[in-house]
Amino acid sequence: MSRAVAEDHSADNTTPYHSMEIGSSLTLGQLLKNVSDVRKVDVGDETPLHSSQGDQDYDDLMRPVPFVLSFNNLTYNVSVRGKFDLIPRRSFSSSKTKTLLDNISGETRDGEILAVLGASGSGKSTLIDALANRIAKGSLKGKVTLNGEPLQSRTLKVISAYVMQDDLLFPMLTVEETLMFAAEFLLPRSLPKSKKKLRVQTLIEQLGIKNAANTIIGDEGHRGISGGERRRVSIGIDIIHDPIVLFLDEPTSGLDSTSAFMVVNVLKKIAESGSIVIMSIHQPSHRVLGLLNRLIFLSRGKTVFSGSPASLPGFFARFGSPVPENENQTEFALDLIRELEGSAGGTRGLVEFNKRWQEMKNLSPPASPNPNLTLKEAISASISRGKLVSGGGGGGGSSVASHGGFANPFWIEIKTLTERSILNSRRQPELFGTRLATVLVTGFILATVFWRLDNSPKGVQERLGFFAFAMSTMFYTCADALPVFLQERYIFVRETAYNAYRRSSYVLSHAVVSLPSLIFLSLAFAATTFWAVGLEGGPMGFLFYCLIIFASFWSGSSFVTFLSGVVPHVMLGYTIVVAILAYFLLFSGFFINRDRIPQYWLWFHYLSLVKYPYEAVLQNEFSDPMECFVRGVQMFDNTPLGQLSYGMKLRLLDSVSRSIGMRITGSTCLTTGADILKQQGVTELSKWSCLLVTVGFGFFFRVLFYLCLLFGSKNKRR
Amino acid sequence: MSRAVAEDHSADNTTPYHSMEIGSSLTLGQLLKNVSDVRKVDVGDETPLHSSQGDQDYDDLMRPVPFVLSFNNLTYNVSVRGKFDLIPRRSFSSSKTKTLLDNISGETRDGEILAVLGASGSGKSTLIDALANRIAKGSLKGKVTLNGEPLQSRTLKVISAYVMQDDLLFPMLTVEETLMFAAEFLLPRSLPKSKKKLRVQTLIEQLGIKNAANTIIGDEGHRGISGGERRRVSIGIDIIHDPIVLFLDEPTSGLDSTSAFMVVNVLKKIAESGSIVIMSIHQPSHRVLGLLNRLIFLSRGKTVFSGSPASLPGFFARFGSPVPENENQTEFALDLIRELEGSAGGTRGLVEFNKRWQEMKNLSPPASPNPNLTLKEAISASISRGKLVSGGGGGGGSSVASHGGFANPFWIEIKTLTERSILNSRRQPELFGTRLATVLVTGFILATVFWRLDNSPKGVQERLGFFAFAMSTMFYTCADALPVFLQERYIFVRETAYNAYRRSSYVLSHAVVSLPSLIFLSLAFAATTFWAVGLEGGPMGFLFYCLIIFASFWSGSSFVTFLSGVVPHVMLGYTIVVAILAYFLLFSGFFINRDRIPQYWLWFHYLSLVKYPYEAVLQNEFSDPMECFVRGVQMFDNTPLGQLSYGMKLRLLDSVSRSIGMRITGSTCLTTGADILKQQGVTELSKWSCLLVTVGFGFFFRVLFYLCLLFGSKNKRR
Repeated sequence: MSRAVAEDHSADNTTPYHSMEIGSSLTLGQLLKNVSDVRKVDVGDETPLHSSQGDQDYDDLMRPVPFVLSFNNLTYNVSVRGKFDLIPRRSFSSSKTKTLLDNISGETRDGEILAVLGASGSGKSTLIDALANRIAKGSLKGKVTLNGEPLQSRTLKVISAYVMQDDLLFPMLTVEETLMFAAEFLLPRSLPKSKKKLRVQTLIEQLGIKNAANTIIGDEGHRGISGGERRRVSIGIDIIHDPIVLFLDEPTSGLDSTSAFMVVNVLKKIAESGSIVIMSIHQPSHRVLGLLNRLIFLSRGKTVFSGSPASLPGFFARFGSPVPENENQTEFALDLIRELEGSAGGTRGLVEFNKRWQEMKNLSPPASPNPNLTLKEAISASISRGKLVSGGGGGGGSSVASHGGFANPFWIEIKTLTERSILNSRRQPELFGTRLATVLVTGFILATVFWRLDNSPKGVQERLGFFAFAMSTMFYTCADALPVFLQERYIFVRETAYNAYRRSSYVLSHAVVSLPSLIFLSLAFAATTFWAVGLEGGPMGFLFYCLIIFASFWSGSSFVTFLSGVVPHVMLGYTIVVAILAYFLLFSGFFINRDRIPQYWLWFHYLSLVKYPYEAVLQNEFSDPMECFVRGVQMFDNTPLGQLSYGMKLRLLDSVSRSIGMRITGSTCLTTGADILKQQGVTELSKWSCLLVTVGFGFFFRVLFYLCLLFGSKNKRR
Repeated sequence: MSRAVAEDHSADNTTPYHSMEIGSSLTLGQLLKNVSDVRKVDVGDETPLHSSQGDQDYDDLMRPVPFVLSFNNLTYNVSVRGKFDLIPRRSFSSSKTKTLLDNISGETRDGEILAVLGASGSGKSTLIDALANRIAKGSLKGKVTLNGEPLQSRTLKVISAYVMQDDLLFPMLTVEETLMFAAEFLLPRSLPKSKKKLRVQTLIEQLGIKNAANTIIGDEGHRGISGGERRRVSIGIDIIHDPIVLFLDEPTSGLDSTSAFMVVNVLKKIAESGSIVIMSIHQPSHRVLGLLNRLIFLSRGKTVFSGSPASLPGFFARFGSPVPENENQTEFALDLIRELEGSAGGTRGLVEFNKRWQEMKNLSPPASPNPNLTLKEAISASISRGKLVSGGGGGGGSSVASHGGFANPFWIEIKTLTERSILNSRRQPELFGTRLATVLVTGFILATVFWRLDNSPKGVQERLGFFAFAMSTMFYTCADALPVFLQERYIFVRETAYNAYRRSSYVLSHAVVSLPSLIFLSLAFAATTFWAVGLEGGPMGFLFYCLIIFASFWSGSSFVTFLSGVVPHVMLGYTIVVAILAYFLLFSGFFINRDRIPQYWLWFHYLSLVKYPYEAVLQNEFSDPMECFVRGVQMFDNTPLGQLSYGMKLRLLDSVSRSIGMRITGSTCLTTGADILKQQGVTELSKWSCLLVTVGFGFFFRVLFYLCLLFGSKNKRR
């Protein structure tokens, strides 16, 4: 059990800028340093987790630290771009800016749930975003304070959690596994695994999902837990570190009344453990309403009611529209608001009435928390009582600097991410199965079409065709990887938003996870085609063939992964991948040799991912100096003289020999592999260089992928 | 104003099997024949539509005909297939069958709304499906009767409508256009356009969507009407012909409380106009509950409550769980049921209690409608009062036979479908724009890469590559058409389910609509590449080039359209299209000539869609007998002798000339286009035959598409 005395918490932290830090640059590290100092004084290294069997005699020490969150005159305008309208549609009127939030004020405290209500488009989600600091700094006017002190972005990130409306979960993990991975990412590394497990168990009980603990989450194709359970798991992930402020965007949307009640009940318990809970809600049932402490009704960005549920009937009665007997109060209020919105005067009357009502109510001064505690002190005290065990360190403040705000070092993140990814994909073997089948079917078709090619001039041309087709197939099958990240992307955005792991760890783990299956696919394709088509080079040739196929798969999947980080949805991504790969093939050197490509397109030839593996396999095939592809009379095969009789051709050879002064018989080798390579313009890079370039392209696209994750996933409104 | 006296309605229809028909094979035609007979007697050809300004003195004649729908002991079992479980999941227990409906009985009548309630998985939708005859005959046990007579599939199809949960609407049509098209498809052709317009206007008013009448429906990319309005438009489409029985699957799901109320209010009005309304509903608000007449609560396929909303509190009070003050009654009931489901004894107690309660209640005999009217008579009477103006004929019974149950003849359907399609796609020009851009970009790249090809041996090889690439591009860009039908498919299934038009009309109109854009794309691509690459044949060559490109687009889009009728979703369809087209290209004759393809693969060569346009353009290109591709010394270009000096080659030519006894100079033509065609194995079909085969393939796939629509879109459960 952790206990701390708030009064002596900052014993040895008396630097001059101590009180300034809160407003400007309070970091988790500093916060936790404080806490660990506090702990040194009187706690030792006890677990910072809530214990379900709390000791009665320490009850008053365990009492939550008071927090009050206030927001004043929040105003948020967006400029509406005048789209080029080809078709009649309801326009936003001709004005250039739209006010999403108009002078919204309010207050809430720990132990309470503040609910924001209103029709869709009223500004509910916008207000939650504004409070959760998800609107870019310049755009939002007004003030948000915690315990009277301005709330800084960094501080808020550390002490809060934001639960999105969508359940973004790995479908093939069980509930317990899902929460356990969240614990690994978010709880400090210093906390032993057994304590993390304990936290997950406590949370599962608190969320009321014990029966589903070992069931997979599920998706369309796999039966899993119910929607309500899924919702609670999502909330569980976000509150695994027991945040001080919890924001939720419509946590009950899409749930039936019972599930909705159970979810809000969980939120109430969280609030009562010392957190501030702020959420938007669409249509609370009677019972849910009983759990809420403060309501704000919005209409077109303006407050039309603000107060406790109990004061609602009185408010509307005074306004002149009493809630009828037996009618759901919030339903009535929302309908009334909608009616007013449709009327000539709009909701102006109600907005004005609410202002007067607020002024009347607010004659008593606003509740102030503990005036003796600064915000930093309050947070520290709260942490020492078990709140906020997120981020780097926690127990051991020393590790903070090295991890830069993350709970784990680099290698642990990669290990955990890899484990999770493997667990998730091992449970849907059909995905890999489909891909393997594609590769094997294409391999089989190619093997039987190009069955045991001969070394005649036509055979050479067909070999070229086989290689071009085979190498582009490698790249095309990689397009299957496109939906994988697009589905994971939202999970990734959420997890990195609260520093669950580094983006670089994700990129690395993503690459590592793909390797085993790529190796397997390479071997499968190589084994299917190498001997069937009759490729050259023996065991070493086969080995290189495997390597270059693997390299193609690697660079192809890197390329597709990069694209999946850029494109907004699967269909577009697929179209782009197919188009670009077609151009890569066109410029690979097969359709038109390098020396024949117009100067102004040469750059694209060198960018073509297909060029390098294509040239590499050609060199692998045509490198044997003993192999001959045009012998004696075959010379005339592709010329107009090809139709002559064999005897005639022999006589021709004789006369040619005499003319050029060199003896050519019917079996003299006239064209070696080297000649063919020269004809095809494959002269610049050795096959090993081509392999290196292909592998290098793979790394290059992974780096691009990393950069686009780094700059592309800002999670804020403008 | 239509007025009919029910008593003398079957004046001249006294064939011996008259009364048998109802149970066995009552067709719309027969029904309507009856009605028109009735009309002949005393109405003339007045409009069969409800008039909003009804004459007061005919009020009692206008009173709806009574209908009672009863269902007894409905039971529906499905066998649960034991899937091969690789992963732990909640199983359905080891039993082989699952009872979705267990002995459900009930009754409802015109003017009333019967609502089915229950948690998800309780059997709500299944019951609606069972009543709406959407469960295959053998699987469902029990009896559904209308006015005491068994309800046959054909009769039901004619007199009922089923409103699905999803809003399947053309996004770019306005509300009024959407309803007007529905009127064109469903209202009889004999009804003048002005009357149809009137019906649409009345309906728009009845649905309360007058303000949105000229707004487009909208989708993700286009701002349109609200969710509640969309819901009402969907209902409007299904009730345009004013059906006697209306089924709705969760019509209020996803709507906020006000919209939900407005929707149910519309349904109430429809019921009061003389229809039976049966719907499932998730969580009715207090006000919605006030509009419902009968409730059935299901739990795991069993009835746990059945009665009026008013009797609900009494029922639960007697059961020992009174509804608390101020609590939403249905919410309370659903929660109680869920609680019981989770308890040891399950809902058995409640099911038993309900049985006893029903027995007690049912001491009074069931309501019987007008005992003097058979079902057929009642339906006919109802029709003559304005109900059911759907299907073929209506006013003119004679036209029924020729149209076979459809409101319009073939050509009108095609015209209307084409109009709708063009209207919808003209409002999203970006779709065609994207496709045009793809074709132009590829054309530009090909034109610049293969800029003014020469007639050297290498140039010939490059020409082949250009044609192979260009022809497969035609097919690949057709893949863009894949999502179009997949999105429309559900609309199509719904519309054909109630005989809005023939499937063949749809297939034809679908083809007709695509032609103009395909012609434009063909011209664009041909003009971009023909002169730039330097293709042969002059104006006639260009014309043929345009034609074969157009034919490729046509057969490609037919192929993709056929596929879109087979595959379940876009991603899979795209993967399949890309893979098959790749194989088509592989077998086209470019990668490997026909004479070199192994025997066992030749069949695929002839199936390859790319083969025919490829061979056609080759013949178009190499048909000029004056054109020469290998001249004199060029003969040695692709042979090992190619490196010799020009003088040396001339001497060689001399000696060759002597050997074969034929004079070959430096400018003698050695290879004509015909030779090249022979080398490439293009010898079997003339270019016009290839064009014909390509066009024919297009028609073939349209026929396949038609067949798969005919057999693939059964809308029933097994």
